[in-house]
Amino acid sequence: MHIDQLQTPAAIVDLDRLAANINRFQTYLDEHHIAGRPHIKTHKIPEIAHMQVDAGAVGITCQKLGEAEVMARSGIKDIFLPYNLLGAAKLERLMHLARRVRISVTGDSEVTIRGYIEAARNAGLTLPVLVEFDTGLGRCGVQTPQEAADLARMIAAASHLQFGGLMTYPSNEQTGGFVVETRRLLAQDGIPVESVSAGGSPIMWQAHTFAEVTEHRAGTYVYGDRSLLNAGVMTQDQVAFHLIATVVSRPTADRAVLDAGSKALSSDPARGATGFGLLLEYPDARLEKLSEEHGWVDLSACTQKPQVGERVTILVNHCCVANNLFNQVVGHRRGEVEVIWPIAARGLLQ
Amino acid sequence: MHIDQLQTPAAIVDLDRLAANINRFQTYLDEHHIAGRPHIKTHKIPEIAHMQVDAGAVGITCQKLGEAEVMARSGIKDIFLPYNLLGAAKLERLMHLARRVRISVTGDSEVTIRGYIEAARNAGLTLPVLVEFDTGLGRCGVQTPQEAADLARMIAAASHLQFGGLMTYPSNEQTGGFVVETRRLLAQDGIPVESVSAGGSPIMWQAHTFAEVTEHRAGTYVYGDRSLLNAGVMTQDQVAFHLIATVVSRPTADRAVLDAGSKALSSDPARGATGFGLLLEYPDARLEKLSEEHGWVDLSACTQKPQVGERVTILVNHCCVANNLFNQVVGHRRGEVEVIWPIAARGLLQ
Repeated sequence: MHIDQLQTPAAIVDLDRLAANINRFQTYLDEHHIAGRPHIKTHKIPEIAHMQVDAGAVGITCQKLGEAEVMARSGIKDIFLPYNLLGAAKLERLMHLARRVRISVTGDSEVTIRGYIEAARNAGLTLPVLVEFDTGLGRCGVQTPQEAADLARMIAAASHLQFGGLMTYPSNEQTGGFVVETRRLLAQDGIPVESVSAGGSPIMWQAHTFAEVTEHRAGTYVYGDRSLLNAGVMTQDQVAFHLIATVVSRPTADRAVLDAGSKALSSDPARGATGFGLLLEYPDARLEKLSEEHGWVDLSACTQKPQVGERVTILVNHCCVANNLFNQVVGHRRGEVEVIWPIAARGLLQ
Repeated sequence: MHIDQLQTPAAIVDLDRLAANINRFQTYLDEHHIAGRPHIKTHKIPEIAHMQVDAGAVGITCQKLGEAEVMARSGIKDIFLPYNLLGAAKLERLMHLARRVRISVTGDSEVTIRGYIEAARNAGLTLPVLVEFDTGLGRCGVQTPQEAADLARMIAAASHLQFGGLMTYPSNEQTGGFVVETRRLLAQDGIPVESVSAGGSPIMWQAHTFAEVTEHRAGTYVYGDRSLLNAGVMTQDQVAFHLIATVVSRPTADRAVLDAGSKALSSDPARGATGFGLLLEYPDARLEKLSEEHGWVDLSACTQKPQVGERVTILVNHCCVANNLFNQVVGHRRGEVEVIWPIAARGLLQ
């Protein structure tokens, strides 16, 4: 079957480009002696996670326990879950996972770490815990090296936890200084900082320039999207993920309506661009508005205009959230369908 | 089990409010002799569709063939699919449905209607088709009564189609005039306009004021959200749908981070409000930013502030897209869990 015969809207992945994206970045990380730990939140598909591990990743990163559970079931052996996991039910699930695979987590508060201590002690397991620090994103993470050192000491002192190092997102110029100062504080207690995990796809090719970082987590690079294209880290012919949509209405001379709306594309904006996606066949068209199952396209700048029933290929603003809206993606090579992957880890429990 | 014991983020539905929302609006429509045809795109759950039909709806509205297939399998007998369906594969699925239930569709172009003619003739069935017109939304729909009349004649002349009337979204002041003029044009050919389907939740209580409209389609009213609250058509204690989230981090005095991000809430804005949702327990908090699995809350205006591990209830901006991000919703009465509904029609093929 050719992708031209798929019912729309469809999420498609170019398998050659996918493999090239995985291998290109892993080769770069290998050259710079940085461990790769790809973030599977972008694709949520075990088969792609295995491609990443087979290419040389030390393990994977998940953002939800539900994702980690799916990936563990598929045979992935080393999972990092950089999230504060709280509450008895989640900690019990975490311990179930810890019995089967190597799973490490993060904490940025005493409350979180106390939960890990109790859960690991009750389970009789040793849980690796990294301390999350904030280098300017302003999301989670301790704010100072002193706080990081305090939590690291709490972890190192707990008999059923193992201090797994430091973690932040994204890698930036502040990362190295924070790590050096935290290491200095911990040296007094003989606690080494052996691993520093950072990441981000927009800064993927600068990963080697951030001092102290030993491991890089990247998610979006595997597919690529309009935001990553505009960040200048990949070219349009490297993007592996697209939506195919059909023009279902041409109510006026300058308007086309697509069968892809906010439940296919999401409302996420793209870095450095307006609109909700780029139509590859009509780059002058503006996908200016979405309702749930319709995309509104302004054709006023187009010389050629699509007809009702015509199919278009959309470069999406943000592939991680678009992929998350589908139940399956269609893998193809040069347009020939080769595999249909259920997005096995989507919509699951945190 | 109480909802306080659910793992977060969780989508919850208050079953008493849900039933009250359904019955309140159906009673209003009944009083005004307007047919109700609720749009199931909001909930995508067969059990709720059956509640709506049992309350007096003439049938349901779906936005995707995949939704209609799920609803037909659950025993719903009358489905309106107000969409231009194009392509052999979809038309074949449509005919499969038409053999089992009463299904009507819309068209706003000759291309679409030619497809229906051919498919219905090949299947030996009679398909009701409504003509979609645009009353200012600027999405799909013919622009003039003349175009509407031309397509209506094309449908009426086709032996395997039945002209089902006119359809628009949303109902507004232009609706009546458009219908009257189209009816006048069609009267010359003896083609009656028996049904006029319009809709919208934000204007639900004005439905009786729009001349010529015989049927009202509303979706969001069943759950309610921040947009509908701000539209003034329901009160906060009528909203049936919420997310429960946990504070997973308190990195600074003025910041909390929730375990609900754009993959739980969506990036959709709310009518007449800023931010990505309202925290019921902390109405002065601002849910100001989302990443995929994190919600960033500014607490600077709050006198009381939540602790790490505390749970909050989020009134979402747009319930239709938030619901679509979950695999299940939890139905409860006064906090006691009564049912867990799979969101059976989410993520399916258009």
